[in-house]
Amino acid sequence: MPTLTKTRNSNMNRPNPLDRIRIVLSHPSHPGNIGAAARAMKTMGLTRLVLVNPRSFPDAEATSRAAAAADVLENARVCASLSQALEGTTLAYALTARRRDLATATRWPRQAAAELVAGAALGEVALVFGHETSGLSNEEVALCHAPVSIPTNPACSSLNLGAAVQVLCYELRLAAEEPGEAPSGTLTPASFEEVEGFLNHLEGAMVRNGFLDPEKPKRLMPRMRRLFARTRLEKEEVAILRGVLSALETGPYRPPSATGED
Amino acid sequence: MPTLTKTRNSNMNRPNPLDRIRIVLSHPSHPGNIGAAARAMKTMGLTRLVLVNPRSFPDAEATSRAAAAADVLENARVCASLSQALEGTTLAYALTARRRDLATATRWPRQAAAELVAGAALGEVALVFGHETSGLSNEEVALCHAPVSIPTNPACSSLNLGAAVQVLCYELRLAAEEPGEAPSGTLTPASFEEVEGFLNHLEGAMVRNGFLDPEKPKRLMPRMRRLFARTRLEKEEVAILRGVLSALETGPYRPPSATGED
Repeated sequence: MPTLTKTRNSNMNRPNPLDRIRIVLSHPSHPGNIGAAARAMKTMGLTRLVLVNPRSFPDAEATSRAAAAADVLENARVCASLSQALEGTTLAYALTARRRDLATATRWPRQAAAELVAGAALGEVALVFGHETSGLSNEEVALCHAPVSIPTNPACSSLNLGAAVQVLCYELRLAAEEPGEAPSGTLTPASFEEVEGFLNHLEGAMVRNGFLDPEKPKRLMPRMRRLFARTRLEKEEVAILRGVLSALETGPYRPPSATGED
Repeated sequence: MPTLTKTRNSNMNRPNPLDRIRIVLSHPSHPGNIGAAARAMKTMGLTRLVLVNPRSFPDAEATSRAAAAADVLENARVCASLSQALEGTTLAYALTARRRDLATATRWPRQAAAELVAGAALGEVALVFGHETSGLSNEEVALCHAPVSIPTNPACSSLNLGAAVQVLCYELRLAAEEPGEAPSGTLTPASFEEVEGFLNHLEGAMVRNGFLDPEKPKRLMPRMRRLFARTRLEKEEVAILRGVLSALETGPYRPPSATGED
């Protein structure tokens, strides 16, 4: 009988929470925004778009704005009401402009994303966005568990619909998976001795050229030391800097044929 | 005589860091994206848009997409080069797709936003976005201190330009409203022009001394540029480095009484 090969990747069989999060657009009026929302979703790893009574869909403008996320549009579900869109979910949050008259505490996107991702471990969840100018109706907000608001400039608080979807999907992605280390670069650090060798070379050159008076050194070498400590020199950089120093000390290079003049 | 009304807002006279953050779009090709970027900025409280060689600006499509942020477009600066756009800044980050070949460590948006907001306490800072499909050139990335990448779905990693600006401005607003630790040192960062002046001086000295062959420059200046971008030079350090360079170029110092010998 075959035995299961053990894998180092313990996430392999765990469902991806982003696959259980529906992005619901209620009554979107601009097809371009539907496309932008699809693209925003796919760049963050979400795929399940639900449209409630879109003014125009499918639409060439939506497809064009979706770019590489055309498949998200193709798989989008179209519903006649928000109730229908939320069927089968166990948690739903509603995007609203910041309002103080709502009974339920508003979440900021980061908290909402953490709660939705946690909820996705237990069942289907949804994040609902309203019409571009009128937003969600009170009845629609009431169908959801809590309102979510994006912190904004009070003097200009209305994000474009696609941009709002992008911000929330970005937070959902961060909540679903720690992004890990950012690419760290290809640094090959110089050793202590290499850096000291360079600093001694620099000090010697400055003394020989009269820039540094060994009798009155002031803070010159400590300053240089601090500068190159901050930068964390690479091996190759030390070699280049020492090459530059040597070239500057010996003066302009003259081709071998001209050396007789000296 | 009128007395000043006391206000509960102790932040009143503290400059808003968001006012010192430039959003730079290099070579944007779609006017709609310029408008979307302006709107994304204003909803998050940013106002300083700089455009490097936009294909079409001003443009009705940009104005339409900017919605209530038309003033951000009206006050946008148009520059001929990224160097010009960065004049007067002391810190600049470059948005790039996630790449492992970059020598400098990449930041995620949250860390980058915190660093830019901290940097804005000391001087002007910038966040640079490239062309919609080709991004920033290597030369443009080299003019900045570090790359920034948005964590994305590896299978679909290209955000719309306006959406990318929205995500970064959202993180900038969050970082600005909860300012972390104030920078502790007494750093007085050098400006973009001061650093460029030093790098030009260094390049000239290396050419004059035969260390750098302008016909076969290889990767020498990009390497030097990267080194000093990492270290974030201080004003006084630039002065010292230029003094060292000048002293090394003119050769050993001779006291005035001995000058007759030359």
